[in-house]
Parts: sequence; structure tokens; C-alpha cells
Amino acid sequence: MDFLGIEDDEFLRGKVPMTKQEIRILALAKAHISPDSTVYDIGAGTGSFSIEAARLAPRGRVFALEKNKEAVALIRANAEKFKLSNIEILLREAPEGMADLPNPDVVLIGGSGRHMEEILDLVTEKLPEGGRIVVTAITVQSLMQCISYMRVHKDIYQYDAIQVQVSRLEKVGPYDMAKALNPIFIVTCTKGVF
Amino acid sequence: MDFLGIEDDEFLRGKVPMTKQEIRILALAKAHISPDSTVYDIGAGTGSFSIEAARLAPRGRVFALEKNKEAVALIRANAEKFKLSNIEILLREAPEGMADLPNPDVVLIGGSGRHMEEILDLVTEKLPEGGRIVVTAITVQSLMQCISYMRVHKDIYQYDAIQVQVSRLEKVGPYDMAKALNPIFIVTCTKGVF
Amino acid sequence: MDFLGIEDDEFLRGKVPMTKQEIRILALAKAHISPDSTVYDIGAGTGSFSIEAARLAPRGRVFALEKNKEAVALIRANAEKFKLSNIEILLREAPEGMADLPNPDVVLIGGSGRHMEEILDLVTEKLPEGGRIVVTAITVQSLMQCISYMRVHKDIYQYDAIQVQVSRLEKVGPYDMAKALNPIFIVTCTKGVF
Amino acid sequence: MDFLGIEDDEFLRGKVPMTKQEIRILALAKAHISPDSTVYDIGAGTGSFSIEAARLAPRGRVFALEKNKEAVALIRANAEKFKLSNIEILLREAPEGMADLPNPDVVLIGGSGRHMEEILDLVTEKLPEGGRIVVTAITVQSLMQCISYMRVHKDIYQYDAIQVQVSRLEKVGPYDMAKALNPIFIVTCTKGVF
Repeated sequence: MDFLGIEDDEFLRGKVPMTKQEIRILALAKAHISPDSTVYDIGAGTGSFSIEAARLAPRGRVFALEKNKEAVALIRANAEKFKLSNIEILLREAPEGMADLPNPDVVLIGGSGRHMEEILDLVTEKLPEGGRIVVTAITVQSLMQCISYMRVHKDIYQYDAIQVQVSRLEKVGPYDMAKALNPIFIVTCTKGVF
Repeated sequence: MDFLGIEDDEFLRGKVPMTKQEIRILALAKAHISPDSTVYDIGAGTGSFSIEAARLAPRGRVFALEKNKEAVALIRANAEKFKLSNIEILLREAPEGMADLPNPDVVLIGGSGRHMEEILDLVTEKLPEGGRIVVTAITVQSLMQCISYMRVHKDIYQYDAIQVQVSRLEKVGPYDMAKALNPIFIVTCTKGVF
Repeated sequence: MDFLGIEDDEFLRGKVPMTKQEIRILALAKAHISPDSTVYDIGAGTGSFSIEAARLAPRGRVFALEKNKEAVALIRANAEKFKLSNIEILLREAPEGMADLPNPDVVLIGGSGRHMEEILDLVTEKLPEGGRIVVTAITVQSLMQCISYMRVHKDIYQYDAIQVQVSRLEKVGPYDMAKALNPIFIVTCTKGVF
Repeated sequence: MDFLGIEDDEFLRGKVPMTKQEIRILALAKAHISPDSTVYDIGAGTGSFSIEAARLAPRGRVFALEKNKEAVALIRANAEKFKLSNIEILLREAPEGMADLPNPDVVLIGGSGRHMEEILDLVTEKLPEGGRIVVTAITVQSLMQCISYMRVHKDIYQYDAIQVQVSRLEKVGPYDMAKALNPIFIVTCTKGVF
């Protein structure tokens, strides 16, 4: 049984920053990935989202877009480690190369470079009614780019944004000490459902 | 397709307090419920955990224990609303009545009354190797009762505790205003896996 | 002895929203108010910031600007309650009426209406080197307006932004239950100190 | 003018962990230190609390108790750096050596080793009516030891506990990225005021 929420240390990571398990779980639950979904993972990093998405969509496909070569190698290694053959890895900086891909049902945006608006414009063309975009943002600027876009396109999308801050209780002798993870914004955008 | 993470307003709630969606998602992901799992939901409240657990375990069974009559009626109404027949609702204050139930694979503890230790003692007898207990606690006392138990029984369990604080960005005219939900502790305890 | 950090329930509040004690303490500590400072409190609400500022500046003056009549009455009542005569209350929506005021040493911005940029432009003219602006923002838009302004004027200001989320442990019988207050952004801007 | 809230990087720290500025500000504001207060700083670490307390009590005295030699050297160096002569540094593990000190008005407890209860017992003997204890705790066990003590001695003390989680927005090129500091519990205990 493949559960949502792979432990962080099961991924090969190198020095590429990785979204933490709890955020992955929440973002993926809100993404509504079905067994046959087509998913884009934009700014895929280590591929942790792609791996989880590919397990949620065993009869679907995941397109992982990532501009960094080292990260692309990690995605490939993680896909192998988890024995997933439904991930297609593209060494590209989105939105480059997105036009040619099959239309997505779900788009995960973890890193937008500085192209959030162009990415969202292209996704808007390709996403069907009911399709979902889930943006995880660690910067207030990325959050605002996404929210501003959704407010401008409020006849097309409805959105829902949260901020999540997780602390892990680390065991230090007889004590449990709260260690904070960075707070993350998660914006869930649904096309044409009102 | 039944996704993990039912929206809060889809549940019938009356005046019974309900764990919020994001916490449910995280606790259930960490619970590792399989399609044929037997699950206890202790202090089931509105039944929101039971409902989600029953969808994750379509070939399994969920036993919802709840001492409050109004809450039991809500669980029943929610089970009907979501058309779930694999939830058995017991009007009891745990650990009363737990001894006779089939052994669980997963135990969710949302409310322990003041019986955390007795509940955990009984669960420890019934839970198989690899079984999981997931405690969601809003009070520091409940957290400590659980952690203290796990520290005493460290040859039986390993545990992992987090605190989660979610804020929702509410739309107020042109603004998105952060509204905090109460922080919740989630303790995940796994039996005999080291 | 007048301590920084008046308890929330000591203020008269009516139905006007009020920044909570912990946020007031942090914002005021970061504001560096001296005994003879001139302070503007923009969007003064109940006057809780004005009251604390007036106590920190017994030989200085506080100008409380507030557009809402009910709130202005509360500020007046609070100034009387705390026996402070160095608060001047102005029923105006900033930046209106700011031009004529004596130059400030410290500017507190709790509510900017939709005039953040104009307010900051006028403050920039009036604030001396080393003067401070402290913005408390509950919306991401207000935060961004402030941060964007400071980034554009990075030859004039340096800024420092935090987000603070406080939970209070409420006593419920033998339990202490964490109740979250809304997270607040605090941006501290210092003029010409590099 | 000496403002409450010295910047973290103004302290000499070595490798000794230090409470962050925002927590110091809140704990000290809640401590109600007067210009002539006698203050204990128990588990003084780098002395950051002692330094701030000594500035709030220019006519009073601060007793910094710390068991670690390296830390004691840091406290001494920091007291010199900030030109404070009203700090007495004691290389001791509290409660050892507390009995002989002049009675305190305020007791700050940052580190209790494993002696919270004995420390609180001795403080209870020495603290006058209206005196305050402020405990900053990073572990849930320390929090609980303090809260449990206060609940047992509820005829002597009233307490008030909060949890504070601060994130700092770090500038990374055109972005402001939230970096979380660990959440801290602050318990404020007041003797005999009901």
C-alpha cells in the first residue's frame, strides 16, 4: 500500500531544497489527483511532489519541469527508487515547453522562477473546467503573484489560500523540543466551479 | 473519486466542535489506513475522522466511540450523508466497550476524556505490530499524557510529534486577511517498528 | 510605574477591532520611542497604540489619526482613562491633514485605508534620518504595499519584517487549551541608517 | 536612550544558544521590571535577558545564575560590552546558592536544568506579593512542569501562558522568504494577586 506522505528522509535530496512532508500531504490532498490524472509539477526540485503525484495517479502521467540539472538527476533517481514509470522529466524552465504537453488535470507549482504570470496564463488555456492549480509559496511575492492573478481572473477561478506552520518535537534526552519548519502558503485554485 | 480532505462545511456539525480539514488530512495521512483496515475513532465528535477513515477503508471497518448523545446523532447523520455503511457507532466513553471490539490496525484519538492512559493500555493489548495510533491534541495536558506514555513504553512504541498551526486567508474586499485556526498537536505512534 | 504592555481588557474597545497586547509590545519595542518623541498613530482604532506610545513619550506628543467617529470617541475615552494629555486626536483619514502636523520621530501604521503609498510618501518627506516607521499588517496586501515601497526606496530606508503568531493557553478545567490569535506582520523601517 | 529589544547580533554569543529578540521583548515586558527591581535570571545562558533586565533596572540588581563556565564568560563579556555594573554573575546551578541572595521582585527562568520544582519552591519563599516569575520554555516538559506547579499552588499564584512563533522575512533577491524561529512558551506567574 502506497500511502500519501512519504517520509522526507526516504527521498534522495542532495543539496536541493525540499518541501517538507506535511506540506506535501496538504498540497496533494487539496490537488484532487485522480488515478488517471495528468499532472504538471512545475519547479519540481527533488521531485518529491512528482513522486507522490505519480503514486496517486498510477494510470495517469506526471510531467516534472525543472530547470536545474542537478535537480533533474535527483528526480530521475527518486523515480527509480520508488519504481515509478509514469513520470516524464523535462529539463526546462516553465513556461517553456509547456505548450506541447498534453493538457493537465492538476498543476502543482512549487517554483515559478519569475514567470508566475506567464505560467498561469498558459495553464489557464490548457486546464479543463474543474481542474486545479495548487501553488506552494515560501515567499510573500510568489503568494501575491498567485493571489493577484486569481483576483484578476475571478470569473475563471476561485481560490482558497492558507498558511501552514509546522513544528516538529525533537527528542533531546527527556525533553521534546519544538523545532519550527518554515511557514508555507498553499493556494488552491479551481477553474470554473462556482 | 473520494479524495482525502472533505471540506469542513460538508459535514453536519451542530454545535459539536470539529477538527479542521487540514488537521484531519495530516492526521489521516500519518495514520496509514489501508483499504481493509479496522479503525477505532475515539472521541469521534461529529464523526469527521470516522467518515474520512471509512472512505480510506472501504473494505474495512470504523468503530466510532463517542460519549455524547448529540454527537452520536451527528455521526449517524454524517455517515448517511456520505453513504457509508462501514461505520459502527458506539455511544460509550472509551475505554468502556473497547475490549469486545475486533482488534484495530489504526487508532485515532481525538478526545480521551480523562482516560488517556487506560485507553492507551487497552490499545496496546489489541494493536498488532506495525499498527498506528494517531492522537490529535488541543491541550498541552493531552499531549503530555500521550508523550509520557510513549516514553515509558519506548520498548513498544516509537512516536513522532508535531504541532500544526494553519491560518486561512479570508477575502475581505480587495484584501486577504489571515485568520488563525488553533494550533493542534499530532502524535503518531507506531508499535514495534524500530 | 507604567509598563509597556497594557492588558487588552484594560482598554475600552466597543466593537472596534484591537491589536492584541503581544503585538503592541513588539511593535512598540521596535519603534524606538524616546521620552520626547513625536509619534503619529495612523489608523489608531481604539487608541491602544496611542496610549502606550503616549506613556513611552511623556514629554513628547502623539497624534492619533482615525477616520471612524466611534473609534475617535474610544481613543478619547481611553486617553482619559489612562490620564494622558499628550495625545492629540484627529478625525481624519490619513494622509489627509498630516502635512500640517509637526514632523514625527516615529510613525505607527495600523490601518492605511487604501492609501499606504501616499501615506508613506508624505511620511518620507517629514521623517528625519534615523526615524522609524512601524507597520502592523493583518492582510498580505498591506504587507506587500509596505515592502514594495521599501524595496523601491531602498536608498532611503532599510526594513525588517517579521510575522508573529501568538496562541494563548486558555484554562478549561484541568486543561490548558491553545487558542490562536491571528498572525500579524510587523515591518520596521528605518530612515537612512545603513 | 536604551530601548527594550537589543538586536540579537549585538550580543556576544559563542556557541551558547540564545533566546531571540522578539521573545526577550515579550518576556521582559510581561515581567514588569521596575527601575529599582531585584531580578534573578536563572539559566542565564549568554546573559541576553540579564543585560536587558539590568537596563530596565538601573537602580536595581540582576543576579545571573548559570552553571556553564563558557556561558558565564559570555555574560561577563556582554555586561562589559553594554557597560552594566548592576549584574552579579554566579557560576551555579540553581537552586544552589539562591537561598543567600536578596529577595527578588522578578524571577526570569530560561533554563531550569531538571530542577524546576525545587527552583519554584525556593522562589515561592522569597518572592513578595505582586512579584512575578516569567518562564520561557522551548520544551513541552518544562512548560508542563511550570504549569503543573502553578495549578497545584493556585492559591498562591495566578498564571498566564502563551506560545509565540515568530518568522523573519529574509531578503533573497527580489523575494522576502519567511524563515521560522522555534516557537517558545512564555508563562507569566504573579504571586498573590487575584
